[in-house]
Amino acid sequence: MHKTLKRAVTLIFLGICSIGPTSLLASAADPLPSWQDTQTKAAITAFVQAVIDPDNPRFVPQDQRIATLDNDGTLWTEKPLYIHVLANFERMKEQMQQNPSLKKQQPYTAIASKKLDYFKALYENQGLDSLVGQLMAVPYGGMTTNDYANWIRNWAKDWQHPKFKRPLNQLTYAPMRELITYLKDNQFQVYIFTADEGDFLKLFSQELYGIPPQNVFGSSVHRDFTMREEGTAITRAYRIQYINNWSAKARLINATFGHAPTLAAGNSNGDLQMLQYTSANGGLSLLVHHTDDKRETAYDSHTDKVMTNAQKHGWTVIDMVQDWRSVFSK
Amino acid sequence: MHKTLKRAVTLIFLGICSIGPTSLLASAADPLPSWQDTQTKAAITAFVQAVIDPDNPRFVPQDQRIATLDNDGTLWTEKPLYIHVLANFERMKEQMQQNPSLKKQQPYTAIASKKLDYFKALYENQGLDSLVGQLMAVPYGGMTTNDYANWIRNWAKDWQHPKFKRPLNQLTYAPMRELITYLKDNQFQVYIFTADEGDFLKLFSQELYGIPPQNVFGSSVHRDFTMREEGTAITRAYRIQYINNWSAKARLINATFGHAPTLAAGNSNGDLQMLQYTSANGGLSLLVHHTDDKRETAYDSHTDKVMTNAQKHGWTVIDMVQDWRSVFSK
Repeated sequence: MHKTLKRAVTLIFLGICSIGPTSLLASAADPLPSWQDTQTKAAITAFVQAVIDPDNPRFVPQDQRIATLDNDGTLWTEKPLYIHVLANFERMKEQMQQNPSLKKQQPYTAIASKKLDYFKALYENQGLDSLVGQLMAVPYGGMTTNDYANWIRNWAKDWQHPKFKRPLNQLTYAPMRELITYLKDNQFQVYIFTADEGDFLKLFSQELYGIPPQNVFGSSVHRDFTMREEGTAITRAYRIQYINNWSAKARLINATFGHAPTLAAGNSNGDLQMLQYTSANGGLSLLVHHTDDKRETAYDSHTDKVMTNAQKHGWTVIDMVQDWRSVFSK
Repeated sequence: MHKTLKRAVTLIFLGICSIGPTSLLASAADPLPSWQDTQTKAAITAFVQAVIDPDNPRFVPQDQRIATLDNDGTLWTEKPLYIHVLANFERMKEQMQQNPSLKKQQPYTAIASKKLDYFKALYENQGLDSLVGQLMAVPYGGMTTNDYANWIRNWAKDWQHPKFKRPLNQLTYAPMRELITYLKDNQFQVYIFTADEGDFLKLFSQELYGIPPQNVFGSSVHRDFTMREEGTAITRAYRIQYINNWSAKARLINATFGHAPTLAAGNSNGDLQMLQYTSANGGLSLLVHHTDDKRETAYDSHTDKVMTNAQKHGWTVIDMVQDWRSVFSK
C-alpha cells in the first residue's frame, strides 16, 4: 500500500474505531427526545456526564457503572393492576374452566367471585400467602419452567391491555427506554430489579428494553430438579424462594455487585431502600411520580415513604406531566 | 478525499471493524497453549467452532452462548482445603485471640483443638449447621459487607498457600484461564457458579479471571439493611440464604438465564446436576479430573457420581496429567 494512503488509513481506522458509531450518533442528536427540556432532564444528563468524566470528582469507573431500575410503574404501566397479575388471572380462569372445583379454594375463589380485596390484604405477606405466592407460585405449581415460558409467551401474543388497548411493547414508557439506551451508550451496565417474578419479565426484557434475562433480578419461586430418562426437568414448586421488594432489593443489589448502584430508578415504597442505598453512596436516585391522569393514571398509592425520602435526600422526581413529552412507546 | 483513497478507506474500515482486533489475534496464535494436543483439547475447540458457526446444526446464537464454571477444583486448587476455608480459619484464630472464651463454642472449639472432622460431618447439612453456615456466616456475623470485603482483601494481600507457597493468582489453573479467554473471544458470556460464598470470590474474580462480580453466583448469607443517620449499612446476618451446590446450581442457572448453559465445567459431585442439565440440552460438559500428584494433588473424593455420569453421558473428562502442559498460572 502507498505510504501516505497507509498512514491515512491507519489514522482513520484508529479514530473511527475508538470513537465508535454509537458515540458519533449520540453527539449528533438529543439522546432523550421524549423528555421535556426541564430541570429533571438536565439533572439526569449532568449526572451522567459527570460520572463518565475521569476529571470529575463524581467519576465512576466503567466496571462499577451500574444502573438498577424497577419495572412496574417505572419502565411500564402498572395500573389498574400489574400486567403480570392480569396474566395470572387469565391462567386461573383457564384452570377453573378445566377444573371447576378449584373455585372452592383460594386464590381461585377470589377470582371467581370477583372479590379482589383478598389480594390487597396479601401485599406485605411473606411465603406462599404473599402476592407472589398466591398469584405466581400457585397457578403454575408443578409446571416445568419451559412449559411456563410457553404458556406466558402464548398469553402475550395477542394480549392487549384492558384500559390502554395496547400490546406489551407499547405499555413501556418511551422516555425510560431512551434513558436505558442513553445509559448503555455511556457504558452503564443496566439491570432490572423488580418485585415481580423474574421468570415472567425475563421472557420479554431483551425485546422490550434490550436487557438480557440474566440482567433481570426479581422475586422467585423455588424449583425442583429431576433427571429423567429423556433428559433433565426443572419444575416450579409451590414455594417462594425470594421476594425482591423493600430492603430485599437493596440487599440483593449488594449481594450481586458488592457495592451500591451509580443510578437507580423506582416509583413506589417497594423501591425505598434501593433508592436510599444509591443516594447514600453518591448515586442518582430517580423517582417516577404518576401525575398524569390524561395520558396514563394519576396515583399516590404506596408512595408516601419514597416521596418523603425524595425531599429529604434530594432525589430527582420525574413528574410525568411536566417532564415527559410522550408517555408510551410506539 | 481522493475517490480511490476514500473507497479504500471505507472498505478497510468496514473490514477491520467487523472482524475486530480479537479475531485477528485469535486466528494467528493457538488460543490454548497450556493444553496438550490431545483429544480433549480437540473436543473443546471443535465444540466451540461448531456453536459459533451459523451453518452448523449445533449453532447457538450469541445472546444464549453462556458458560457456567465451577471454581474450587475447576478454576483453582482446592486441596488440602478450600482456599476460602483457610481464610476463615485465620479469621477465627484472630477472633479467639481477641476473645478466648469463643473456644468453648463451635466452630471455634474444632479449630482450637484441631479436630477438623467436625467440619467434614457438615458437608451435606443445610442452614447454619452447614459448612457455609459454620465457616462463612458465623465468623463474620454482624459485620458490614464493606468491613467483610476489607478483612478478606487484607487477608489475601500477603497470604501464601501452605502447600504450594503461591499467592491467590498463581493458584488458578493456566489452562482454564486460557479457556475463559477463548470462550470470551468467541462471544461466550462466562459465569462462575460456585458452592463457595459469592461474596468471597466476587472480590477477586475480575483480577483472576476477568469475570466481573455480578457474573459470580455463589452461596450466600442473609444480610440486614439499616438506614442510619450517616448513611445506609448492610450487615451480614447469622443466617444462610442459599447454598449453591448440587441441584441448586442447575436450578439457579435455570432461574438466571431461563435455559441451560452452552458449556459447563466442574470437578465434583456438587457439579453433577449442572453438568447433567448442560449435556441433556446439547451443551458441552467438562469434568476436571485431578490425576496429577506431581504438579498438584491426585484425588477422587466426592467424584463418584460425576465420574459415572461422565461415562454414561459422554462428558469430556480433562485428565490433568495427560491434557495440561502446565497447571498453575504464573
